[in-house]
Amino acid sequence: MMMQSEDMSLLTDLYELTMAQSYFQEGHNDLAAFSLFIRKYPPHRGFFVACGLQDVLRYLEGLRFTPGAVDRLHHTGIFSHDFLEYLKKLRFTGGVRAIPEGRLFFVDEPVLEVTAPIIEAQIVETFIINQMNLQCLITSKAARCVHAARGRNVIDFSLRRTQGMDAGMKVARASYVAGFNATSNVLAGITYGIPLSGTMAHSYISSYEHEIDAFRAFARSFPERCILLIETYDAITGVQKAVEVAREMAAQGRRLRGVRIDSGDLLTLGRKVREILDKAGFYDVQIVGSGGLDEFDLEELSKEDAPYDAYGVGTKMGVSGDAPWTDMAYKLVRYGERPVLKLSTGKVSLPDAKQVFRFTEAGQMHHDVIALHDEIIDGGEPLLERVMADGKALSPLPKVSEIRDRFLDEFARFPDCYKAIYNPDTYPVEVSPGLKSLRDKIERHVVAAELEPVRWRQELDES
Amino acid sequence: MMMQSEDMSLLTDLYELTMAQSYFQEGHNDLAAFSLFIRKYPPHRGFFVACGLQDVLRYLEGLRFTPGAVDRLHHTGIFSHDFLEYLKKLRFTGGVRAIPEGRLFFVDEPVLEVTAPIIEAQIVETFIINQMNLQCLITSKAARCVHAARGRNVIDFSLRRTQGMDAGMKVARASYVAGFNATSNVLAGITYGIPLSGTMAHSYISSYEHEIDAFRAFARSFPERCILLIETYDAITGVQKAVEVAREMAAQGRRLRGVRIDSGDLLTLGRKVREILDKAGFYDVQIVGSGGLDEFDLEELSKEDAPYDAYGVGTKMGVSGDAPWTDMAYKLVRYGERPVLKLSTGKVSLPDAKQVFRFTEAGQMHHDVIALHDEIIDGGEPLLERVMADGKALSPLPKVSEIRDRFLDEFARFPDCYKAIYNPDTYPVEVSPGLKSLRDKIERHVVAAELEPVRWRQELDES
Repeated sequence: MMMQSEDMSLLTDLYELTMAQSYFQEGHNDLAAFSLFIRKYPPHRGFFVACGLQDVLRYLEGLRFTPGAVDRLHHTGIFSHDFLEYLKKLRFTGGVRAIPEGRLFFVDEPVLEVTAPIIEAQIVETFIINQMNLQCLITSKAARCVHAARGRNVIDFSLRRTQGMDAGMKVARASYVAGFNATSNVLAGITYGIPLSGTMAHSYISSYEHEIDAFRAFARSFPERCILLIETYDAITGVQKAVEVAREMAAQGRRLRGVRIDSGDLLTLGRKVREILDKAGFYDVQIVGSGGLDEFDLEELSKEDAPYDAYGVGTKMGVSGDAPWTDMAYKLVRYGERPVLKLSTGKVSLPDAKQVFRFTEAGQMHHDVIALHDEIIDGGEPLLERVMADGKALSPLPKVSEIRDRFLDEFARFPDCYKAIYNPDTYPVEVSPGLKSLRDKIERHVVAAELEPVRWRQELDES
Repeated sequence: MMMQSEDMSLLTDLYELTMAQSYFQEGHNDLAAFSLFIRKYPPHRGFFVACGLQDVLRYLEGLRFTPGAVDRLHHTGIFSHDFLEYLKKLRFTGGVRAIPEGRLFFVDEPVLEVTAPIIEAQIVETFIINQMNLQCLITSKAARCVHAARGRNVIDFSLRRTQGMDAGMKVARASYVAGFNATSNVLAGITYGIPLSGTMAHSYISSYEHEIDAFRAFARSFPERCILLIETYDAITGVQKAVEVAREMAAQGRRLRGVRIDSGDLLTLGRKVREILDKAGFYDVQIVGSGGLDEFDLEELSKEDAPYDAYGVGTKMGVSGDAPWTDMAYKLVRYGERPVLKLSTGKVSLPDAKQVFRFTEAGQMHHDVIALHDEIIDGGEPLLERVMADGKALSPLPKVSEIRDRFLDEFARFPDCYKAIYNPDTYPVEVSPGLKSLRDKIERHVVAAELEPVRWRQELDES
């Protein structure tokens, strides 16, 4: 169940290793450049947030095929002795350029580029996509939730329904980067420095003979951080009991911090509960809403100015419920001196190493240009930074709170029309003239070298 | 990035630990029973497959709050000294009854029940749901893919797009349990004894100056397991080059094992490719199809009898793309001698520990009955088995291949109408008279004890 560091090198697709063996045996190991990018927006999405670079850099720095791992590979019977010996000494010695974590990026823009001898650059593909795809996806989803909540606090409650433990950790981090205020995930809070938040479960309530006994017990245990879950049986009778407990606490100089509603019609219930609390004079007792919420629900609640102070957002954010994957791809764009692309139906890629330039007007993000890696596009801010050379990360990794600040700063300068919850406008991304002409040239070359001779011979055969 | 065993106890929702502290301080720690169940089918689903028990049992056996973990909890400032000291000595000492891995289960049926002092039973909630939800969900999705593929081989290609590394491992295991034939995930293959499978990526092709150079190089490296990816530029010209290489291999007494198509209209391309291979006499060269496939695509391809020998199924199975979560819940059903339930809108639960009985007619699964744990329902097979007592697993865990056999055996006896890919019939699940009458009794009791007095007092206040 636990992942040992020895295992990490084996957590890869078999074909990465079979291709690597073939590259090795053929002496085919020139410097290769790979671009990591997303081809298409999921429905209603209009942006992505870069996230996951920290895990990628740590993985690349630590990549080792230990004798134990090599021994396990040997027992598969697939690999040759000389290749396995080679693997024992293999380290990642290449370079990485990337859009920093927390910054926005868009379809077709490389969020990360790896340059290394092709064996090294190839075998890291599976891990890089696995981590970057999840983290960019969730950060974008979480950013939409924060946007829809319009200033109300948003708390990550997703751990129980994330797809596994690793996702649970990464979702807590990604959602915090996107502006969430806290997480219920204890290990993530401690590991990443995220504020912790939590209330109580229905089981706590029903384990007591009477709901109000449970409320009183919890108030005794946590007089400073007592948030009562009020709809185990019925939210309205529940809040009336909460008011009774709030009065008892007040008599002792304590304050009930809040109540939580986890099911039912949150808008109607929230209003009734607010009314009951206010009528009793408990204007400062907060209301937390939860239960299957996503940005679409939050948008509706915000529009109606529902009287919630905070939302617990779980499952649908934690698995990106409406769009649980992207088509993120890691494509070879250059081998040795030769820029390359693929032509597969619907999947034509942009050749060569690239740079992305961002243009700002009147303090707002205006458009991006994808260019060749050595092009200079005047007036644009280059987004990809060199973060690793010769297999070593170039600067200390930023703290999660710094990445979060970077995101919030840029997101505030990203016009609202592109972050609409339903059918956002498409942020303009251009391809530079230099890159366009290279793509056309390579495409013509591939058609001439790979397709026409075969077609021509076939026609000859058939005539 | 790596999960240490010390961390596992902290990978939980904060509220599990705050509730535990409150239970501890209140001396409220009677034996509690929790039921784990799914309330609703996702669209088009009509069954679930039990999966994940092995991880749950290992977690429960190994649960420890190490001094290091307790120290980290101490630094949150949330917990009391006496509770933290108590945590250091805490072990899971309870019992588990469960439907064995690989067996079918249905909405409202407890797939697992935990009985333990409530502190222990409570704090394991997050982990249990996290693992069981993912694994039951994916096994069910994968079973639908296997069913739709109608006997063709199905291979797990999902690792790069699973939601994190843990999911990558669990998806490989779950899909194999559901009848997949192999996985591309090297670590999962080695760990769980699943056959490994892999071909080559587009990058392998485009790293060579000519596609046919790449084909020849791979054939040299893997003469016994050579499957060529043919649509990097164009599937038809690609297969013509593959035929050329197949002839060269044949001249050396070798056999090209197959070709793979990863994009485009798989039905049309598959037929043309088969025709070209057959015309050249390569009847035994297999065709592998891949690229965004799920059970809905496989159903269409199977209906048309598309000439594929195997399918690589990745992303949409690996994240359960059409339904990436279930509403699996872990509910307190008994505390001490008192059966309990919750009444929250739309979430009324069944009280008390339970048993599920399965009835068979003419060798086929016929219907299930959910009953009280000590009821005997004649003629039905009880599904929940005692798998842990006093915190120790009762028997050695079965091998993954044994679980797979158990699944395939039962799935063959599960009528087709319930496993239709679109809108399956609902398999009949009844609630026993004993359980029904208990539920009604407890519901009446809760209404009388918790709701009516408050409503009555409120009316009095308002009159």
